[in-house]
Amino acid sequence: MPIRTGEEYIQSLRGRNLKVYLFGEQVKEPVDHPMIRPSINAVAETYDIANNEEELASAESSISGQRVNRFLHIAENAQDLVLQNKMQRKLGQLTGTCFQRCVGMDALNSLHSTTYEIDEKHGTNYHQRLLDFIKMIQNENYVIGGAMTDPKGDRSRGPSEQIDPDLFVHAVDKDDKGVYISGAKAHQTGCINSHWIIIMPTLRLTENDKDYAIVGAFPVDAQGVTYIYGRQSCDTRSMEEGDIDAGNAKYSGQEALVILDKVFIPWDKVFMYGEYEFAAMLVERFTCYHRRSYVCKTGLGDVMIGAAASIADYNGVPKVSHIKDKLVEMTHLNESIYAAGIASSYQAHKLKSGVYLNDDMLAQVCKHNVTRFPYEIGRLAQDIAGGLVVTLPSEKDFKSTETGPLLKKYLTGRKGVDVENRTRILRLIENMTLGRNAVGYLTESMHGAGSPQAQRIQIARQMQLGYKKNLAKNLAGVKDDYEEPTENSEYFKRVFKINDKEQ
Amino acid sequence: MPIRTGEEYIQSLRGRNLKVYLFGEQVKEPVDHPMIRPSINAVAETYDIANNEEELASAESSISGQRVNRFLHIAENAQDLVLQNKMQRKLGQLTGTCFQRCVGMDALNSLHSTTYEIDEKHGTNYHQRLLDFIKMIQNENYVIGGAMTDPKGDRSRGPSEQIDPDLFVHAVDKDDKGVYISGAKAHQTGCINSHWIIIMPTLRLTENDKDYAIVGAFPVDAQGVTYIYGRQSCDTRSMEEGDIDAGNAKYSGQEALVILDKVFIPWDKVFMYGEYEFAAMLVERFTCYHRRSYVCKTGLGDVMIGAAASIADYNGVPKVSHIKDKLVEMTHLNESIYAAGIASSYQAHKLKSGVYLNDDMLAQVCKHNVTRFPYEIGRLAQDIAGGLVVTLPSEKDFKSTETGPLLKKYLTGRKGVDVENRTRILRLIENMTLGRNAVGYLTESMHGAGSPQAQRIQIARQMQLGYKKNLAKNLAGVKDDYEEPTENSEYFKRVFKINDKEQ
Amino acid sequence: MPIRTGEEYIQSLRGRNLKVYLFGEQVKEPVDHPMIRPSINAVAETYDIANNEEELASAESSISGQRVNRFLHIAENAQDLVLQNKMQRKLGQLTGTCFQRCVGMDALNSLHSTTYEIDEKHGTNYHQRLLDFIKMIQNENYVIGGAMTDPKGDRSRGPSEQIDPDLFVHAVDKDDKGVYISGAKAHQTGCINSHWIIIMPTLRLTENDKDYAIVGAFPVDAQGVTYIYGRQSCDTRSMEEGDIDAGNAKYSGQEALVILDKVFIPWDKVFMYGEYEFAAMLVERFTCYHRRSYVCKTGLGDVMIGAAASIADYNGVPKVSHIKDKLVEMTHLNESIYAAGIASSYQAHKLKSGVYLNDDMLAQVCKHNVTRFPYEIGRLAQDIAGGLVVTLPSEKDFKSTETGPLLKKYLTGRKGVDVENRTRILRLIENMTLGRNAVGYLTESMHGAGSPQAQRIQIARQMQLGYKKNLAKNLAGVKDDYEEPTENSEYFKRVFKINDKEQ
Amino acid sequence: MPIRTGEEYIQSLRGRNLKVYLFGEQVKEPVDHPMIRPSINAVAETYDIANNEEELASAESSISGQRVNRFLHIAENAQDLVLQNKMQRKLGQLTGTCFQRCVGMDALNSLHSTTYEIDEKHGTNYHQRLLDFIKMIQNENYVIGGAMTDPKGDRSRGPSEQIDPDLFVHAVDKDDKGVYISGAKAHQTGCINSHWIIIMPTLRLTENDKDYAIVGAFPVDAQGVTYIYGRQSCDTRSMEEGDIDAGNAKYSGQEALVILDKVFIPWDKVFMYGEYEFAAMLVERFTCYHRRSYVCKTGLGDVMIGAAASIADYNGVPKVSHIKDKLVEMTHLNESIYAAGIASSYQAHKLKSGVYLNDDMLAQVCKHNVTRFPYEIGRLAQDIAGGLVVTLPSEKDFKSTETGPLLKKYLTGRKGVDVENRTRILRLIENMTLGRNAVGYLTESMHGAGSPQAQRIQIARQMQLGYKKNLAKNLAGVKDDYEEPTENSEYFKRVFKINDKEQ
Repeated sequence: MPIRTGEEYIQSLRGRNLKVYLFGEQVKEPVDHPMIRPSINAVAETYDIANNEEELASAESSISGQRVNRFLHIAENAQDLVLQNKMQRKLGQLTGTCFQRCVGMDALNSLHSTTYEIDEKHGTNYHQRLLDFIKMIQNENYVIGGAMTDPKGDRSRGPSEQIDPDLFVHAVDKDDKGVYISGAKAHQTGCINSHWIIIMPTLRLTENDKDYAIVGAFPVDAQGVTYIYGRQSCDTRSMEEGDIDAGNAKYSGQEALVILDKVFIPWDKVFMYGEYEFAAMLVERFTCYHRRSYVCKTGLGDVMIGAAASIADYNGVPKVSHIKDKLVEMTHLNESIYAAGIASSYQAHKLKSGVYLNDDMLAQVCKHNVTRFPYEIGRLAQDIAGGLVVTLPSEKDFKSTETGPLLKKYLTGRKGVDVENRTRILRLIENMTLGRNAVGYLTESMHGAGSPQAQRIQIARQMQLGYKKNLAKNLAGVKDDYEEPTENSEYFKRVFKINDKEQ
Repeated sequence: MPIRTGEEYIQSLRGRNLKVYLFGEQVKEPVDHPMIRPSINAVAETYDIANNEEELASAESSISGQRVNRFLHIAENAQDLVLQNKMQRKLGQLTGTCFQRCVGMDALNSLHSTTYEIDEKHGTNYHQRLLDFIKMIQNENYVIGGAMTDPKGDRSRGPSEQIDPDLFVHAVDKDDKGVYISGAKAHQTGCINSHWIIIMPTLRLTENDKDYAIVGAFPVDAQGVTYIYGRQSCDTRSMEEGDIDAGNAKYSGQEALVILDKVFIPWDKVFMYGEYEFAAMLVERFTCYHRRSYVCKTGLGDVMIGAAASIADYNGVPKVSHIKDKLVEMTHLNESIYAAGIASSYQAHKLKSGVYLNDDMLAQVCKHNVTRFPYEIGRLAQDIAGGLVVTLPSEKDFKSTETGPLLKKYLTGRKGVDVENRTRILRLIENMTLGRNAVGYLTESMHGAGSPQAQRIQIARQMQLGYKKNLAKNLAGVKDDYEEPTENSEYFKRVFKINDKEQ
Repeated sequence: MPIRTGEEYIQSLRGRNLKVYLFGEQVKEPVDHPMIRPSINAVAETYDIANNEEELASAESSISGQRVNRFLHIAENAQDLVLQNKMQRKLGQLTGTCFQRCVGMDALNSLHSTTYEIDEKHGTNYHQRLLDFIKMIQNENYVIGGAMTDPKGDRSRGPSEQIDPDLFVHAVDKDDKGVYISGAKAHQTGCINSHWIIIMPTLRLTENDKDYAIVGAFPVDAQGVTYIYGRQSCDTRSMEEGDIDAGNAKYSGQEALVILDKVFIPWDKVFMYGEYEFAAMLVERFTCYHRRSYVCKTGLGDVMIGAAASIADYNGVPKVSHIKDKLVEMTHLNESIYAAGIASSYQAHKLKSGVYLNDDMLAQVCKHNVTRFPYEIGRLAQDIAGGLVVTLPSEKDFKSTETGPLLKKYLTGRKGVDVENRTRILRLIENMTLGRNAVGYLTESMHGAGSPQAQRIQIARQMQLGYKKNLAKNLAGVKDDYEEPTENSEYFKRVFKINDKEQ
Repeated sequence: MPIRTGEEYIQSLRGRNLKVYLFGEQVKEPVDHPMIRPSINAVAETYDIANNEEELASAESSISGQRVNRFLHIAENAQDLVLQNKMQRKLGQLTGTCFQRCVGMDALNSLHSTTYEIDEKHGTNYHQRLLDFIKMIQNENYVIGGAMTDPKGDRSRGPSEQIDPDLFVHAVDKDDKGVYISGAKAHQTGCINSHWIIIMPTLRLTENDKDYAIVGAFPVDAQGVTYIYGRQSCDTRSMEEGDIDAGNAKYSGQEALVILDKVFIPWDKVFMYGEYEFAAMLVERFTCYHRRSYVCKTGLGDVMIGAAASIADYNGVPKVSHIKDKLVEMTHLNESIYAAGIASSYQAHKLKSGVYLNDDMLAQVCKHNVTRFPYEIGRLAQDIAGGLVVTLPSEKDFKSTETGPLLKKYLTGRKGVDVENRTRILRLIENMTLGRNAVGYLTESMHGAGSPQAQRIQIARQMQLGYKKNLAKNLAGVKDDYEEPTENSEYFKRVFKINDKEQ
């Protein structure tokens, strides 16, 4: 029976034989660990929203022929991609953190076209295997983690050139049942909260890297998998009594190092094996989807703006012109991100397999703004919040009979404002600019789906300088110097084609 | 017979009895004035493109039942609005300047819904009059100028409170044939190059301002109309011999002060008269369309990037990392503008009259970025270009037998680069950052369709702080402080509605 | 016998009967509390540096006639102010945090001139009392805390208009021995680590606020004083085993809420009492000194840049052009702050009492850049560091026999780099951008010595628009419109005076 | 008899047999050419200010033993350098343009130490020759132009590797009287307005470039020198009737291409000849002085701010919060430049020859901000000014009896404001953001004294990452990884040395 609700999802995670390490010890039941639980709660919201806002967060799949969670849906038109963005923003608003399910969604969509095109060239049957896998997970309503980032070791060397071959995940053995892989994937979002993990290569591969050209799915509790939990700023506040100092007590993100020691993948779950020349296509399509998925941060931005507006209100200064102007600026920056994201989705085109791919240039632009604007939005929120955001005493001091009344007396703001509520909003701002969810709102905005330079490289590839130089030369009256543009991008072709309903 | 081509358009402007003043004298034939002609050439491109790229720049109109120039088309779906943006970018690329025809397009579209809603309330028949007018101009393929900005005089006073009532255009008389208006409209884009002008109020009006609540159309050469031409930086270079120093010799923008002295508008061309409470609606819808129309500047941005890339190439430094990085940054900023524009168009909704209106918040975001990014793109272009952009000798020095050979010898760049071509590109960069088309690329980007503060006011109106405060309070665990949001915006309702194909 | 070394200083703090609350309980001995100790270590450095770099960090005082710690020295020339800045930068480099001793230094210097001018008007003898106090603390080499920021309650009301009079510190009683004060001072830097506290009003006062016009000194362990410790991001990591996860295990800042319940100040330690009209002068001079003191953040910036350069090195990418370019940008921003600080100090002038005051406009400019640039420097450091900065497992996992070897295998970077060292640098970057010292490097940079808007108000007061308008009108040939400037600033008089060695 | 006043200076330029080309023709008398004259007027101000503000703009020279114009003075202490900056700001305020005399000042100062150190190594007597030259020009009070920038041709090749050897200035012959040089110097500021030109190499030279290692002085009207005048935006407005449209009718800058055809330099005016290894020293010291000299732009910034404040006033909106806030931002940015400049001058050190050299790192920081902030200040000025700044009709239209009254009627602003005055201020803003002085305020700010990348390279050389990495490693507890810093900069040694009065 498929998982239906957030609550059922949480139940589904119990009792698995996971090897999760945290603070040097193996965690008995991650579901009940107070530092892990908030990340599970965030994923649970992706189930509840599919019930509460069905059109936004679920879709009719032509694969399983039923209504499925949008995170498991293959985009059948541009509108599906736009709706992904809208759902992402909404979940960002509801959780104020990373809800960890986009990587899987974007992995499935990018594999849809890549497997199709591998099959086309090599006569393999990866695409059908993938469709079967998708049908199964749609039926069960599973969480899929997508694992791409290898540790990489010496960055000046490729996978097969490393001293230790395990620094990139690779096939170490195979038999008639399947493939065995070893290696690790670093800072894997929501891996422990998933049911299945899809493993993928992280960069363009050469012929020497054939063993590294492996894509496949395995259950999170497969034999040979070890998880080492990543620390976050202020993570242990989740283990303290009370719920104020955590800032956002219910939700957080999750990143872990996943170590694979001869993990088995049966043939029917293998979606690439040796076709190294398709690694680049997979990575580029995945990052194209995924960089646009960072529209989720506009949902967090909405929370941040709301928190700043609330504290301005509690401080009694909501109408002061410089405060209002900063809220406008925060909104402007936040919507600039959103605009680039949905523009990328709207300007999608259909690939051979039938899946839609959003516009690549605009996806880069979206993510690149994400590496800048949340930092400025956070800075402005701290500006509005005032110094108390980093000097508030602890919740225990507020609760203490000795210090509580003193704090209540002296930390009062505008008349009618409850000191605890004011404290809660300040803690939320701390949470999102310095604390646990600053990891998701700031640093992950910087590095998730590729660091800023990765976007600049992609923009450089698509900026079609030859085309633009001819525009300039034409207007300047330059003679005998027309260049035949040899661009490796179809950006302007996409911009100026008329009917964006066809490929 | 309708105007078909740019050439026919230029012919259509000849022989009109226009009262145009420039340098203190009346201009005999504007079409032949070397300082005016480049602005006419830019409009002519809007005709040629409709032939050359039919799907982009023309559309089937359900009003006249024929294929019409897109600038005269009423948007019948979101795609029409998106295509406006794409056509605008393309024309920006082809002309490197303001092609002056968007104001009319946006005026017609905003009048479509406003006249409909006035009629609905007042039982008037403005909408049908407008449809008849549109049918006529579609048949003739005319250029329509939209005139909104009044001189305003003392900005702390409304129209009816000014010492001189003419500081805002108003009806001064009427009879059974029509209305007579006086006043002026400041910096009117392309007015002299139009066939008809639609006059509109410039701001929210009160009951005392009834005479100012006037919308109507009159021919550009109507009796009582005087045009005083606005100077542009380096404008007289168009009157010098040669075509190099102008930078972009063929194209420029045009702004003039239009003075109206009892200009007659027949009743069938009057589209509002006295319904002051609809002035704000008209202004807001017009600016909503028009702020998004500034996507045209991304076309100019493409030229600017192309010019910078060309000069880097001529200087022999196209691969230098900081040069390439600046070209990436320019592209990123340019596409950020584009993304916001088309996102606004895609996220359109249908109004009662059947016309589509693009998203208002995202239109503000688009224009607000336009008030910032072209300046930075221009700064980076000057950075890449080097100091020669402002120290080059004149074209005459290049042509002189005495100095020409010296300049050719000393201003040589990378081997194989023609000195004249290098000079032409430098002059184009000067043209767009300091010269004639810097007016369009920079200052008009700042002030056209409303200054930055105008966008901030609109963003403030739509930022829905009540909604966002509740998001923050929910996550922070704030108690007993839920606010009932009383927003005057439906932004988030539009964001999260599912089917953007319906209203 | 005076305190000579950091070690002696730490000893001097023991055994005091302080009422310090933390996590709802009274702290037995703050010196030995692992969460408090790092802040004490930072102050201890201010002693050791006076021995190690005598010319930088100590000075001959004409008050006590001996060489004293520079933090207790009254500036006798512009060079003294410059050296304050240089010492501040050095201490920032050595501790990577707030060393908490500038407030006292700036308070003493601003009181020097203010008491002199009060006496001049009122015939009081505050100045001599202050000199006696300074002589005493110079002899003992004490740490002085300066307490200015009141909780303020409803910000739309002044001190005497609050519902609760205690929301600003005020005199509640007096007798022939002295004055008794009540109230609180919020987020007091280093208060628990001080020997004496000087209390000062926080804003311009009116005649109704006479009781609030109180300045005086009392020992930190005076009767009636309660301290409630402020939480910092990641503060409890200081209480964990190991020293890696803290990032900067040795040093941190300190802020506490100080509550005063009828605290006694003897007459000879009272430096203002009732002369409300001098409150504004004191506040303005204090902030003038103190905003320039934020040059200390350039020392933290140096650490941040060093950490970013180190991690780039460990990752094997120190020569990559975009990395190097980001390090250049960080340096440029950091030195822009430094330049404004020392320019303000150099352009000092002598006040009536003989003390030197740095330039006010440039002090505002310095601090205003501090509210912006550290955030950008921190953002760039995170960019260079990579995602590991927020996903590293805990120190315990590194130490564990089960997970340690796995981490060592997979988190290796460039050959020859020790994984622990790489981890330590990543934790330091986390510490300064999200963790404990992000409080000092970011949020305190925003709000310490006044929030951004406070600087903008001061800049507005001094920008001398009248003078500048006349410059423009002169060049534009404006007629009959010269304005007699009535500026309340002498900025340009200071800029253009020739001999900055005299008043 | 020495030149005493601006008027005498202008007379001194008459009747020289200069070969100046402009618009393809030789100019008869540059002094009387309306397009050239404003640049002469700007230089004339450097004479008058020495009389009007003696302490600011003149100094006692120990070389000639008399009071001399500060532009001819060798800096004998740090204060002399600071006063250069203050004089530069003042002249920027008085002229609103480039007054063209800093290059010579900075050339003389950098030659003072360089000739001394060449002599020290090679036993030459360049230093004494230079002192004799300086004494002569101090006695006559001449304007000295410094010529550094060669055309450079193919930038990937050095001087001796060019196809055409003349692309860098070089010695082509010599005899017992002196040396003969050929080549060209591009965009030479104020060259035609000078009495003497000092020629210098433009970059680091190798042994093969010996002939290019030539420094010497020759009179501006020496045989074999040809000047080709550089065009500026809106330059011909200076040739129109009236004085309004020019914006700043009295003052402008000047740049020309100087071509040298076997120009003779007698031995006693040769200050380097063949000592190629000192070219880098000369260039670096010159740019160190000169990049800090860009403090002059803060004087132009003051004019720009004044113009923006004036137009806000004329428009009736001087108190509007966003307008005021923009004026604050403009001031903040302008003073950030100033602070870096004077900080560099204050933090000077003495060189072997006795001359003082300002701090190099801070000079780079100053200039680097100059490549950014004036563009933003200009953008904000355009924002405040409104669209009229680029759409105003011509002065002739204002003067015409037909259109003048209409313009007066419709371009009125706040009551009591003269339309002509309002127009004049708008034209000044146009002049400084798009027109003739935008060349000096914007593009020259970008490229003068080296483009942005040149500063970044110098910052990179001096950022002392080794020192900073050790700071970080120390705090992070990194083990066994202390680096011995091998910096090629003494920046931090200068920062932390105590007595900045000695070397």
